[in-house]
Parts: sequence; structure tokens; C-alpha cells
Amino acid sequence: MAAWETYLHKNKERFINELLDFLRIPSISALPAHAAEVQRAAQWVEKRMKDAGVESVRILPTGGHPVVYGEWLHAPGKPTVLIYGHFDTQPVDPLNLWDSPPFEPVIKDGRIYARGASDNKGNLFIPLTVVEAMLKTVGKLPLNLKFLFEGQEEIGSPQLQHLIAAHKDLFSCDMVFSADGGQWSEDHPGLVLGTRGLSAVFIDIQGPDHDLHSGTYGGAVANPIHALVQILDSLHDREGRIMVEGFYDKVRRLTAEEKAEMAEIPFQEAEFLREPGSVSVFGEPGFNTYERTWARPTLEINGIWGGFQGEGLKTVLPSTAHAKISCRLVADQDPAQIADLVVKHIHKVAPPGVKVTIDKGGGSFPYLIPPDHRGLGIAALVLKDLYGKEPYKIRSGGTIPANAMFLEHLKAYTVVFGFGLEDERLHSPNEFFRLSSFERGQKAYGILLERLGATG
Amino acid sequence: MAAWETYLHKNKERFINELLDFLRIPSISALPAHAAEVQRAAQWVEKRMKDAGVESVRILPTGGHPVVYGEWLHAPGKPTVLIYGHFDTQPVDPLNLWDSPPFEPVIKDGRIYARGASDNKGNLFIPLTVVEAMLKTVGKLPLNLKFLFEGQEEIGSPQLQHLIAAHKDLFSCDMVFSADGGQWSEDHPGLVLGTRGLSAVFIDIQGPDHDLHSGTYGGAVANPIHALVQILDSLHDREGRIMVEGFYDKVRRLTAEEKAEMAEIPFQEAEFLREPGSVSVFGEPGFNTYERTWARPTLEINGIWGGFQGEGLKTVLPSTAHAKISCRLVADQDPAQIADLVVKHIHKVAPPGVKVTIDKGGGSFPYLIPPDHRGLGIAALVLKDLYGKEPYKIRSGGTIPANAMFLEHLKAYTVVFGFGLEDERLHSPNEFFRLSSFERGQKAYGILLERLGATG
Repeated sequence: MAAWETYLHKNKERFINELLDFLRIPSISALPAHAAEVQRAAQWVEKRMKDAGVESVRILPTGGHPVVYGEWLHAPGKPTVLIYGHFDTQPVDPLNLWDSPPFEPVIKDGRIYARGASDNKGNLFIPLTVVEAMLKTVGKLPLNLKFLFEGQEEIGSPQLQHLIAAHKDLFSCDMVFSADGGQWSEDHPGLVLGTRGLSAVFIDIQGPDHDLHSGTYGGAVANPIHALVQILDSLHDREGRIMVEGFYDKVRRLTAEEKAEMAEIPFQEAEFLREPGSVSVFGEPGFNTYERTWARPTLEINGIWGGFQGEGLKTVLPSTAHAKISCRLVADQDPAQIADLVVKHIHKVAPPGVKVTIDKGGGSFPYLIPPDHRGLGIAALVLKDLYGKEPYKIRSGGTIPANAMFLEHLKAYTVVFGFGLEDERLHSPNEFFRLSSFERGQKAYGILLERLGATG
Repeated sequence: MAAWETYLHKNKERFINELLDFLRIPSISALPAHAAEVQRAAQWVEKRMKDAGVESVRILPTGGHPVVYGEWLHAPGKPTVLIYGHFDTQPVDPLNLWDSPPFEPVIKDGRIYARGASDNKGNLFIPLTVVEAMLKTVGKLPLNLKFLFEGQEEIGSPQLQHLIAAHKDLFSCDMVFSADGGQWSEDHPGLVLGTRGLSAVFIDIQGPDHDLHSGTYGGAVANPIHALVQILDSLHDREGRIMVEGFYDKVRRLTAEEKAEMAEIPFQEAEFLREPGSVSVFGEPGFNTYERTWARPTLEINGIWGGFQGEGLKTVLPSTAHAKISCRLVADQDPAQIADLVVKHIHKVAPPGVKVTIDKGGGSFPYLIPPDHRGLGIAALVLKDLYGKEPYKIRSGGTIPANAMFLEHLKAYTVVFGFGLEDERLHSPNEFFRLSSFERGQKAYGILLERLGATG
């Protein structure tokens, strides 16, 4: 057993307690009122990185939520790898569906329950503990490392693009490894070749300038909820296809080989449905579930509200109605162009009698790594050794905006190397992370760093 | 000046202070948490009726919010008139749009601002003060009077039907006068010949059993908001017609004479739009604004919600979506049948992949009084004398369920005789009632009671 591995075993309990501390910080990036907590999480990461022996550690201001940078660059001739992760979390509502408070982590049946446990604090912490283990035992790393941990992933990393572009030299590297990702299952590894991009559009509809009596005015002036459902319903056809003109134009079609690779990955509909708890699968005709979530774009209404939401009946003709929409994009869609197409569509179908206001959220490019990438190949071998099985070539339906940014500005591809699992209720109540994944992730990162270093 | 009129003048300040006390009771019938406040409002009315000299005053339990009954029956050979009103109010949200707290009444520029000021506490209190004035001065009334004030009008009077049916003798009368209604304008009277009925349907849609990550599952399982907007959008066509099969089948068409009477009532679109603050009128093609609100049914979405409503973006595929719908009905539509048609329609168009649950709210029949009704004729003369103008024959787009119940069980028509005005923000923030309307209403009720008594 390598020295770093022994160290990890010896300090297991301390690492878990540190992770619990990290999880106690309610670093919800979407809520402006929590900005100081995101900053506090950055400070926690900064201190923890320094304690691990990482050098030049500092918090980089971005104009929004911060980024934490650190490096260890004493392996001349060896490759330089940038490790990426994020310390911000999703919001927690609906709070009443949590079995324990989201920022009071609880360990139960080998799982840590807390918001951010899997996405991404638990996964982010893994490579940090491995680096500490190597530096505190043999005093060096087998390669050059940089860390970029950010606090705005869950809101689409709006300032990260600019930060990376402005610090190309600081972040320059041969390849990126992202701790924000997952494995196929507890006993079968997977390699994420692609992530989807994101475009967001917010609709606000104003009817009357205050809520009206639906008897006095009902039938005589436009109801903004009616206008909203008319607009929203026009976005899909009955079978789930997106009806925004030009939406699919730039979508890269799956090759026959890619389709065949996906078809090899086992899929049981009943098992797939257990986690979401939906009554059936539903989606774009002509594609199966993997294709729908990995290689096809979506347009989802994430939230809708207007009028009376209380108990009983309030016969009101409401003043306003609102919706939040986001699209998951695939190669080679452009998030700004997609947002423009959606906005254009909404204006085209907006009915008379109301005022329609549209705002755009931040966008992220979709991402695909070439299947013959060197780092990807090494990662595949590490996983094969650890799990005893060839990793499936999978993709993530989610979005890691940083991946596309690293490619654009650093000319470096990102290998997703994380240990979350799909049932861990990311973005939902009762998010959790397996302690077994934490340990396996540590071992995987240790071997990975050694092999990346060994290949010069 | 009659003795009762002098008494009203002398006690003006006291009456206004009493009304302010009445308005301080947050008797919101739609909120179960306010049930005790509705009861407190009933007790206030009971005591106030006794103080006025009304006899046999008592609170009648209904199984829901209570009814207050009282009578004065010492005018043998004279007609018996039942006076109706309600002491419950609408909810108050959105609270942040109120200039002063809704249950802390404020008098400003000759107006009392408070929830329930116009609808219906201010109007309900008027006949009570007139009866007190007569009983405390001449010691008798010119006719037999009964009072039925209820606490569940704003939720569609669910238990009133049963109560009236079970106490036909107690409530029996020659005609009803309803204090729940309004005048045309400050200087032109109106007589309300009809009120619309009501049907309510609540839709709950369940997709996944908890909120999902829209990246992981987006595109693969049905989004309940998508299902909801698809269902809701199918309820109207692009021009505002209701698309529920059979919805219009029983609607009584306006006669040429009725259309002509309505056409005589002045209508200025810009003036009409000032109160709602909408950008334009909008409604069923082939009908003008009066026809749309008085003689045509509606189907309004009163509230909608689902998914993330907070600041920023949360890329969630939500678990549930909800809507509250109510229909305003006109003669001769049947509320139960209309609810059935809407439910049938929803089930017909409900898409796969989600569970759709529908609940029905309480229903109320529409109401129309024959234009040659004797009480209506007397009311018209009183208004003509007071305003110096022939009252317009108008209708109300609102619903007073009691009207139809009195007709069914007591065989008595209801003359709407109230003094609210359309701009008084009923059901909206900053509801108010004019002190000038309060005084004019007192005079009108005094003369009305005298003339109804004089006609034997």
C-alpha cells in the first residue's frame, strides 16, 4: 500500500468530519442573501488547501461569487493538470420534504445527507485529501497540479468565462480533471464524454395592474395566466418535440457507432423510473432514454406562478404571471443563439391584451471530449483496474459550463472524474453522498495522479 | 326630514366608528386558520343587531361558517322582506401591494380603506343602521323584516343552500333585498337584474415524486408543468372562446331588446380600462364588454404554480404543478354540469407520463330577476328620486349564490340594493368604500322600507 493510501486510511475520520463542516455552510449561489455564505465556503476551501500543502492559494474575485486557486508546480517535465470543482450548492426548497435540515449533515447507513454532499462538496474534497496525503507523506506530487474551485456553478458560472480568459497563464495546463461528475453505478464505472449546455429565459406577463375581481372583469380583459399557458404550450408539440423554429438546426446527430455504444449500456425502464418516481418515461419520439438525456436538447419549464396559490378558492383575475425556462443543449448548439430563438418564438406567439417581458439567464456551451483523448484513456484504465470492468462511455445530461470554457480559453479538454451516483438526489430534497464513494474516489485520484505523472 | 333621517345624521360618527371596528375583524372565509375570526364577525353582527332593536337574533350553525338571523315582525298585513348580506371577506394577498394593513381601516379623502369595506361590511351595515334609526325613534318599522347575514359568501356559500332549505319557514318572505351589490356610478343609479353563477375546479398534476435535476432527467420523463400548460391552454381558443365541449349549450341568448338596453349604457373603453390598468379589452368575439361580463360565461385560471419561484435560476424538473380554475356562469347554466364538463375535458386532453387529480369547488347558480318584479319597480323609483336619473338596467358579473337559493327554496326573487362602486377594488389590494355612498345608502334604504310598507 502506497504511503498516501495509508495516510488516507489513518485520517479517514478527520476527513469526514471536515467534510461535515464544509457541508454546514449554506453556500447557495442562486440566492443573493446567501452571498456571504458562498464567500465563507471559499474561505473554508482556501484554508483547507493551504493546510494540505498546496501553494499560492488565493481567492480570486470575479465580480460575482469567488473562485479559489492553488497550485503545486515542482515536477518539471511532468504534465500540468488542472483540477476543477465547485463549492456552491443548489437551493433547498421545498424545505418540508427534507428528512433532516439540509445544512445540518447527518450520516445514516453509510451515507452523508446534506445539500451539496454529492454535488459537489464531497467530490471536490476527494482530490484535496489525496494531495494532502502525498505531500504529508512523500513530500511531493508525481506531476504539476493546479486547482480551480468555483462558487457559481449552480447558477451557470456567469463570471467564470471572463476570469479564465483574463488569467490564461495562471490556469494554463495540459488537461483538466473535473471532480464534478459521477460513476455509472456502485459496481460499474463510467466515463463521461459529454455534458449538455444551458440557456435560460424568464417570462413575466403583466395583465391588469392589480389583481381584479374575476366577476367584475372576467371575460373583458386578458388574464395573464391564460396568455402565459398559451405561450408555454406552444413550445412543445403533443409528443414532446420542441417547436421553436431552428431549435434543432445545429444539433450534432449521433453516429451509428455512438448509437451502438449507448445501446450496449443496460437499461431497465422500471429501474430507471424508481428514482424519479414517474409513472412512465416520456420524451422526444424516435430516441431512447439515453439518447434523450445525453444527445438531445430539452426545453424545460422550471417554475411557473401567478394569481392565488393559497387554500380554497379566490376568484381573482390576476395581475401577473411568470415562468422560468431553461434549455439543455447538445453539441453544436450555441446558448446565445438558442436563447434568441426562444425569445423570438415567444414574441411571435404572445397574445394581445398583455405586456410580455423576457429576460435571458446565463448560457453555457455543450461539451464533448474526443474519445481518443490521452487523459481520458488513462482515466479509463484507472477505473477498469478499480472496478474490474470496462467503463461505459456515457454522457451527462447536466451542465458543467467550465468544461467548454477550459476548451475555449486554455485549449485543454476536461476529463470528468467524479464519484457521485445518479440516485443521490442532486438538486432535490435529501441529497446524499456515499462514504464508500468518498473512499473509492480517494483511491482513484491517487492512482490517477501517479499514472498521469508516470506517462511524462 | 323623517325622524329616522335625523337620527342617522346625529349618530353618523358613531356608526362610522362601529363600521371601523367591524372592519378590524379579519374574517377571511377562504382561510381555515381564520375560521374563529369569521365567528367573531358573526358575534359582532349578532350584538349589533340586538342593539339596534332587532328581535329573535341568533347565530345559526351551518356546519361551516355561520349565519346570523334576526327579525322584526310586528306589521301585520304588510309585506315581509328579507335583507341579505355577508360579513366574511376575501383574502388579502399580495399583502405588499396594500398602502395600509388590510384590517387596520384608514379614512382618507372621504374613503374607508380596508378589506371588506365595500364588499360587503360597509354595505351590510347600512340597512342595520336604518332599522335602528326607525326603531329608536318611532319604535316600529313600516313592514316586516328579516335579516340573513352570512359568513361564507366569498367561498361560494357552500352550506347556505342546505340551511335555507332546512329553515324555509324561518326565512319565508315576499321578496329579498340584497345589500351585496353596487350602483352604476357616483351620480347615476343602476339596478342589477342578474348575477353570474360559479363553478370551480382545482387541478393537481404529479410528475416525478420529488423535484429532479433537469439535466439528469430532462427529456426522459414528463414535466408536470408542461402537462398543466397543455391542459390549460386547451380550455380556450386563440380569441378567448371556451373550448370545453357543451360549455355554451345552455347559455340563454340576449334578446334584441336586452341588447338594445345595454347599448344605451355609456361605454368608454379608455375609462373602462383605467381601473384594471390593462392595455386593452380582450374577450369573446362577437360580444361587447357589457355583454361579455354580464351575459356571457367565463373560464378563468385564478392561480397557477409549480417548480421554482425564487430569485435566479434553479434548473429543476419539478414534481408537481397546480392550477385553480373558476367559471362565471349565466342563465341557464347549471354549475354542477359545467364542472362535470370541465373535468371531462381535462381528462380527455391530459397527456401521458403524469398523474392528474381534479377536485371540484362549490358551485352557484346564475340569477336573473324578471324586469317587471314589483320590488324591483319600487327600488327603481327610490333610486330615480335620489339620483334624479332613471337607473340603468345592469347586471353584475359577480356571483351572489344566495340569490338563486332564495328563489329555489323561498320562491322569492332578490332585488340587489347595494351602494358599492366598481372602482372600489373589491377582492384587490386597497379596497375602499366611500363615506358618501354609506350616507346615500342609508337614505335609500330608509325611503325603500317606507315605500315597501306603504304599498301594503
